[in-house]
Amino acid sequence: MPTPLDAIRTDTTIDSYKVGNLLFDPGYRETRIRIASILSNDRIFDKSLRPHLNHRQLLHLSLRIFKRLLELRDAHGWSDLEFTLACRLQDESLPTSLHDAAFVPVIASQGTQEQQAYWLPRCKRYEVIGCYAQTELAHGSNVQELETAARFDVTSGEFVISSPRLESTKWWIGGLGVVANHAIVQAVLYLPLPSNPLEYKSYGPHLFIVPVRSLGTHEPLPGITIGDIGPKAYGGFGMVDNGYVQFREVRIPRENMLMRHAQVTLTGEYVRPAHDKLSFGSMVALRAGIPVNLGWSLARAVTIALRYCIHRRQFAATPGGPEQPVITYASVKHRLYPLLASSYAYIIAGRELWAMYQKMLEEVVQRGNVESLAEMHSLSIALKVKSSTDCAKGLEEARKCMGGHGYSHMGGIGPLFANATASQTYEGLS
Amino acid sequence: MPTPLDAIRTDTTIDSYKVGNLLFDPGYRETRIRIASILSNDRIFDKSLRPHLNHRQLLHLSLRIFKRLLELRDAHGWSDLEFTLACRLQDESLPTSLHDAAFVPVIASQGTQEQQAYWLPRCKRYEVIGCYAQTELAHGSNVQELETAARFDVTSGEFVISSPRLESTKWWIGGLGVVANHAIVQAVLYLPLPSNPLEYKSYGPHLFIVPVRSLGTHEPLPGITIGDIGPKAYGGFGMVDNGYVQFREVRIPRENMLMRHAQVTLTGEYVRPAHDKLSFGSMVALRAGIPVNLGWSLARAVTIALRYCIHRRQFAATPGGPEQPVITYASVKHRLYPLLASSYAYIIAGRELWAMYQKMLEEVVQRGNVESLAEMHSLSIALKVKSSTDCAKGLEEARKCMGGHGYSHMGGIGPLFANATASQTYEGLS
Repeated sequence: MPTPLDAIRTDTTIDSYKVGNLLFDPGYRETRIRIASILSNDRIFDKSLRPHLNHRQLLHLSLRIFKRLLELRDAHGWSDLEFTLACRLQDESLPTSLHDAAFVPVIASQGTQEQQAYWLPRCKRYEVIGCYAQTELAHGSNVQELETAARFDVTSGEFVISSPRLESTKWWIGGLGVVANHAIVQAVLYLPLPSNPLEYKSYGPHLFIVPVRSLGTHEPLPGITIGDIGPKAYGGFGMVDNGYVQFREVRIPRENMLMRHAQVTLTGEYVRPAHDKLSFGSMVALRAGIPVNLGWSLARAVTIALRYCIHRRQFAATPGGPEQPVITYASVKHRLYPLLASSYAYIIAGRELWAMYQKMLEEVVQRGNVESLAEMHSLSIALKVKSSTDCAKGLEEARKCMGGHGYSHMGGIGPLFANATASQTYEGLS
Repeated sequence: MPTPLDAIRTDTTIDSYKVGNLLFDPGYRETRIRIASILSNDRIFDKSLRPHLNHRQLLHLSLRIFKRLLELRDAHGWSDLEFTLACRLQDESLPTSLHDAAFVPVIASQGTQEQQAYWLPRCKRYEVIGCYAQTELAHGSNVQELETAARFDVTSGEFVISSPRLESTKWWIGGLGVVANHAIVQAVLYLPLPSNPLEYKSYGPHLFIVPVRSLGTHEPLPGITIGDIGPKAYGGFGMVDNGYVQFREVRIPRENMLMRHAQVTLTGEYVRPAHDKLSFGSMVALRAGIPVNLGWSLARAVTIALRYCIHRRQFAATPGGPEQPVITYASVKHRLYPLLASSYAYIIAGRELWAMYQKMLEEVVQRGNVESLAEMHSLSIALKVKSSTDCAKGLEEARKCMGGHGYSHMGGIGPLFANATASQTYEGLS
């Protein structure tokens, strides 16, 4: 017997394949089906387990998942793209997500040729697992006021990284809680005055690669206090080890400052970058990826809610008559259909934004052309604020359209909102 | 050194004690302090444990908590009011919350003198632990279409309770998942036709007390399929065992129909209530309690957010100057202050509504006067819809005012929203 959903799927003039072509890269669907079928043979990827685990258990699971993904990558000879897709199919950020989304890209764009040659192969083997440590307990948006200090010791040729106060603790750093053995640390560079080497001058925030855990034992290195910041609101980002770290006079070699643009010489002199804007961090990259992800999150939620409301019946139109599918109610239609349209809009606009970002990055990194940086900066902020506000609101709305069943964790929209609402605060408050 | 909060607390002409008198019953504060100090000596009530537990672990904890509360009640000779307060101080619904909020009150208002005399003392000793089973998997709001049937068997003088389809499964029933041994079941009453005892006539939904688990072994009784429906969205109501139950020809004595108003005689005749409206369920009572609870929830969230924003500093007003407390930002003030006002409004309006409900209940139960029922019905719905929509939105807003720290579970507002947003769907969709 055809279900109400079958009937609606048949009775349409819209070619869903064509719509898919608008939303997906060519070949994406086929690759996705192939990889999903490999994952679905493995019980470790079974998402129905997750709602029953606490934060610690989820972290254990996510590490096991990641290990298994690496094994599958090697067994099937997956490309980087295929591996990324396999990770995305987990529907949750993993402890290594920021390694791939921020640590590696920042080295690739801010590191010298030598630094890239040294670090990137190690990163690819996940021998070095990194995170991106910018935010501090008392400093989120105001990067200029970061307190973590990197003082250059001319005698030893080392940087000394330190957290002057409790408030300087790096906080919220994805991947740092239990997994990362290295961190890219945003710290204020201090160089000795040539006139008086006992006095230091600030040169503002710069990026440093700081080893935080032993490659042998995975224990925190001397001077490092480190840990997981615990569960997040609504159980969001439950499979990521957002962490904190404090530095007590931690020494790193001069070579660990990312020096593609600004440099510090052996004698402690500062070499300015060709252009101030060249050393922009990973924030713009992370922001540029937000709208398309939120669009997909909303699209999934609306799909769940629409399917539910097509099946669900409630109240008869005429006394004694059959109950009506909830989707026929004007109040339900008027809530869900515009949300469906929004999800398409954010997916399409988000893809466009990401393409613009890639193009800009190429211009900046390859040709030192920073012309489009200002536009990209404001565009990524505007779309980030608008998409995160609309999508979080839309997700809750779609969930509520499912009545009590939407409030079950198993309804499926709750976890989407739990993750999506975080985007209203991270990478700048919406 | 005085903190920024101390300064703000001193520099005011508002007498907080007077404000308290507006919001609290006389003597409430003192009782609360006394009971809280008893609870704070007991590690089992430590709320910092909870974020680290999964649903199953939370249920175990909540049962241990409830057992301990009963011990303390007996040790300290607490009154019903003091015991209720001790339960409320847990900040979460417990598996027994619906026993106290619905099971007992429904017996008290819908049961005959004999039924009350039989059941209420057992309830008070928590020998009988009950729940209120109205909602079905496929029927929430549309109570008239409930499918659970109570067929009267004249031969044995018993009702036969059955769930005709999967969709008739009672669902979402607080306390039923693991704890309750009895349920008040909303079921459609069927009585045999006098002309043809093999045919049955429907008399619409009525209330029946159905034993569901053995008092000896706590195992489900024959014909009963029962269990917990699992985790809820956002980890909300994590300490309640919302459950499901299916009945396969479960027989209960005729005396288990609540017969204060409508009755079924030994010979299977129906005796109409004096007034149709007299047998209204517990829905209005549950609804009438919502606005005041949500008002307090919002008040707590705004208090957390205000305290945070008074301490939190960000960006300097002048270059090189000190960073400014976030509360001085117009965008923050304009979000938080109106929410504070809303919370007061809902607490005061909610208290008023509850007092009206109590008065109406007395009129209905003692004097059979149903005059104010219609007004109470519509007023409780209107305030429920408005308060649940505003407060859920306000809670998310307050959480977001705390930036990244609001997204930590430990920020404290997340759990409040997780519970409050449920009120947008339960007891009727907002």
